Amino acid sequence: MYEGIVQELIDEFGRLPGIGPKSAQRIAFHILQTETFDVSRLAELLTELRDKVHFCAICGNVAEQETCSICRDPRRNPALICVVEEAKDVVAIERTREFRGLYHVLGGAISPIDGIGPEELRIRQLLQRLADGTVEEVIIATDPNLEGEATATYLSRLLTTLEIRITRLASGLPVGGDLEYADEVTLGRAFEGRTVVAR
Amino acid sequence: MYEGIVQELIDEFGRLPGIGPKSAQRIAFHILQTETFDVSRLAELLTELRDKVHFCAICGNVAEQETCSICRDPRRNPALICVVEEAKDVVAIERTREFRGLYHVLGGAISPIDGIGPEELRIRQLLQRLADGTVEEVIIATDPNLEGEATATYLSRLLTTLEIRITRLASGLPVGGDLEYADEVTLGRAFEGRTVVAR
Repeated sequence: MYEGIVQELIDEFGRLPGIGPKSAQRIAFHILQTETFDVSRLAELLTELRDKVHFCAICGNVAEQETCSICRDPRRNPALICVVEEAKDVVAIERTREFRGLYHVLGGAISPIDGIGPEELRIRQLLQRLADGTVEEVIIATDPNLEGEATATYLSRLLTTLEIRITRLASGLPVGGDLEYADEVTLGRAFEGRTVVAR
Repeated sequence: MYEGIVQELIDEFGRLPGIGPKSAQRIAFHILQTETFDVSRLAELLTELRDKVHFCAICGNVAEQETCSICRDPRRNPALICVVEEAKDVVAIERTREFRGLYHVLGGAISPIDGIGPEELRIRQLLQRLADGTVEEVIIATDPNLEGEATATYLSRLLTTLEIRITRLASGLPVGGDLEYADEVTLGRAFEGRTVVAR
């Protein structure tokens, strides 16, 4: 146990995900010993995060205004909506620069064990966005795991009644990966989804 | 890339040791999504850490006053000084409740590769503390690695001229460890330092 502030800071840091007592201690000492580390900026940003950042009223992405920068961008195609689990996924997809439509963040995936049913996700808000007929295609980009697949199946069944194209991201071998090390499910999907390259 | 504050906070967190961009992102979202997380307390503690916490004028341990709580404690034995590399080591030793003397934090270990010589450590301050004859024993408790050993050797040679008992922590097998998995140096030390249990 340290004296007062150091221990309190270690405890408080230790409440954050992925930071154990050892890392919290290393962080505290780093701040103490590194003159150049801008501690007041970090403190300010933490407060600003809570005060100014929230979730976009339309898509559920992080936003500093009422809506996020993607929803406000007139160059984005409003006929395309990509449905993801978390705001982190938006950033991952944006990094590819492949997608120029809009997003819809569900806020998680269906997971009966964790008590998360469809009602806990932003599905009602998605249906509202689809009501006016602007959207032509919904791309379901949930995680390729059990919960993500369950959510994708639920959504595709729900949306199939609408006159909208529903697609899902392709499953297959990761680029740069080694076929030998691919798990059998991924390899199976890669076979199922094989594409014709000649004839 | 996220919008403004979120990205800035991720960048700032990413400057701390042991926090990569992924952890920084997880932390930012945790704060955003966990209403109960006391973000203003964390912000406050960060500022207080920089403003109020420094190193004890006597021993170099962390302190909120001019000297640390150990140096101020009249129940500690001033005839015993345990020399450690870092303030973290003080906490580790305090946890054992075995040692009731005072400490001296060197602020590192001799490491020619990192450009750390004896002058960079708080050795001059240690000699000053030993000058008045109060101290009867100096326990060298540097890390049992290359730098720690070098520092211990340097210190024991330097202090041998004084009329003070110089001791070092025992090396040997870690309690609860498995002999089979002990490295040969540790095992060698355990043999060297073996103690008589009968006859």
